[in-house]
Amino acid sequence: MGAARLLRGLARVVPADKLTVVVNTGDDEEFFGLHVSPDLDTIVYTLAGVAPPARGWGVRGDTFHAKTALDRFYDTPWFQLGDRDLATNLYRTDQLRRGRPLSAITRSIADRFGVAQRVLPATDGRLRTIIETSEGALPFQHYLVRRRGRPRVVAVRYRGARSAEPAPGVLRAITGADIVVIAPSNPFVSIGPILAVRGVRAALRAARARTVAISPLIGGRAVKGPLAQMLASMGHPRGSRAIARLYAGLAATLIVSPGDAGGAREGERDAPEMVEHDILMRDTASAERIARFALGHVRRAA
Amino acid sequence: MGAARLLRGLARVVPADKLTVVVNTGDDEEFFGLHVSPDLDTIVYTLAGVAPPARGWGVRGDTFHAKTALDRFYDTPWFQLGDRDLATNLYRTDQLRRGRPLSAITRSIADRFGVAQRVLPATDGRLRTIIETSEGALPFQHYLVRRRGRPRVVAVRYRGARSAEPAPGVLRAITGADIVVIAPSNPFVSIGPILAVRGVRAALRAARARTVAISPLIGGRAVKGPLAQMLASMGHPRGSRAIARLYAGLAATLIVSPGDAGGAREGERDAPEMVEHDILMRDTASAERIARFALGHVRRAA
Repeated sequence: MGAARLLRGLARVVPADKLTVVVNTGDDEEFFGLHVSPDLDTIVYTLAGVAPPARGWGVRGDTFHAKTALDRFYDTPWFQLGDRDLATNLYRTDQLRRGRPLSAITRSIADRFGVAQRVLPATDGRLRTIIETSEGALPFQHYLVRRRGRPRVVAVRYRGARSAEPAPGVLRAITGADIVVIAPSNPFVSIGPILAVRGVRAALRAARARTVAISPLIGGRAVKGPLAQMLASMGHPRGSRAIARLYAGLAATLIVSPGDAGGAREGERDAPEMVEHDILMRDTASAERIARFALGHVRRAA
Repeated sequence: MGAARLLRGLARVVPADKLTVVVNTGDDEEFFGLHVSPDLDTIVYTLAGVAPPARGWGVRGDTFHAKTALDRFYDTPWFQLGDRDLATNLYRTDQLRRGRPLSAITRSIADRFGVAQRVLPATDGRLRTIIETSEGALPFQHYLVRRRGRPRVVAVRYRGARSAEPAPGVLRAITGADIVVIAPSNPFVSIGPILAVRGVRAALRAARARTVAISPLIGGRAVKGPLAQMLASMGHPRGSRAIARLYAGLAATLIVSPGDAGGAREGERDAPEMVEHDILMRDTASAERIARFALGHVRRAA
């Protein structure tokens, strides 16, 4: 959600042919025999202007007739999938079965939706975010959607990370970028799977001086999602300090909400410099202001 | 269509646990990566009471949002698939990929739709009806739906027939039945693929005395579909005589429309006896009358 909102702002500021989005695929899962890539689709739908204004997934105004009928066959009433959204998933699944890599398929999907920006899955390999909880290991969708992020999180694992190669263009997009922006997303379940892909951390380290992260926390709380609870249950510090620690060595700057920079950098090696700015994205206009500020900050620092 | 209509009548006359329907799978094809089985679904939807009253495929009142979205990705605008119907196809495809045979999957689908009758695909193997036309070889859906049955038919082939085994229960359903009814369907593209499955012809021969066919022609014309043209272009006699010839040795009786029995049995060995009766199925009530007549005729002859 945070990433999609920021992206609406970035897309207004950065020319389409200069914007590459590297997307988490750790949320990917199989439902109804379909390869579902919620984050990739959310990014494409957002850039295409067909994402719902408030909901963080699917297509605006979609219907759910197929899903209602699928509930006759499957015991996953909690997993929603709109009829139009289903078409994207059918195409992706069909193409994957024909042996095309996810990155090439994503490019086709973006093309058909008229998206001019480059959308890259972090990897064409199979990487899955597994949430180790007090109730056992849960695939990400089961943890977040089915169990609504309620089970106590003990650890987050990226299954397949060791063998997941970065998709073509991912490393170059990072090392060759004028500016790298780490979106205000959950560092464990949204950014973490990308960082777990071989070579991505090293590429970010190399691009550290030009990398700016935007905190997903405001006053220690996530705008949406279970991040604050996850930090607590996994023994991280509270608030922005935890984010700074997680991005130590990877980003030169961390933009935090006014009043959130206190207590940072205490003994953290390579921790990003904290810069306070209003980072609450109420609408696309405020997302655009934040995008301008983040890009401007890196340019000014250069 | 003819088969589905007759089935509505048969289902009113025969107790559900005494009725087995052996269904053509030669029309099966892959669209959007889905294993589409139009005839199986039509039969299940018909027995479940969710088939449209006039249209020969899909679910009553279905919407087409996913299909419209699929047209963004696929160049098959001519192939229609409703959102609810899509769910059935997704389930079947998913289950096939998991290695379940089509007959078991069909039983599950029928169960979920509350269908108490037994619906059996003729085979779990891969059998495809190929229409050799003046424009080349066309898979059945391409011939009938895309090209609207217009190309001149030179021959009909059943690809895979030699290795297609009858699905479990098919042969026993025929040899063990009190009465076998051959539906008023196209003998080349609807009945032919079933007859092409190994052992089915022999089973029907053994059940010949108890087998009654209903002609798909009325006054030499098909109620629907390209049968009359196919008979002409493939050099068959016109009208009921052609049907009698095709079912020679397989059915003891062929019920034809009043006035259509003329010229029959001339020199045809084992050709069915033609019996005239009103076979135009205007509604379920007339289908029920025809079903009663057909079953009664076999009983009276026994």
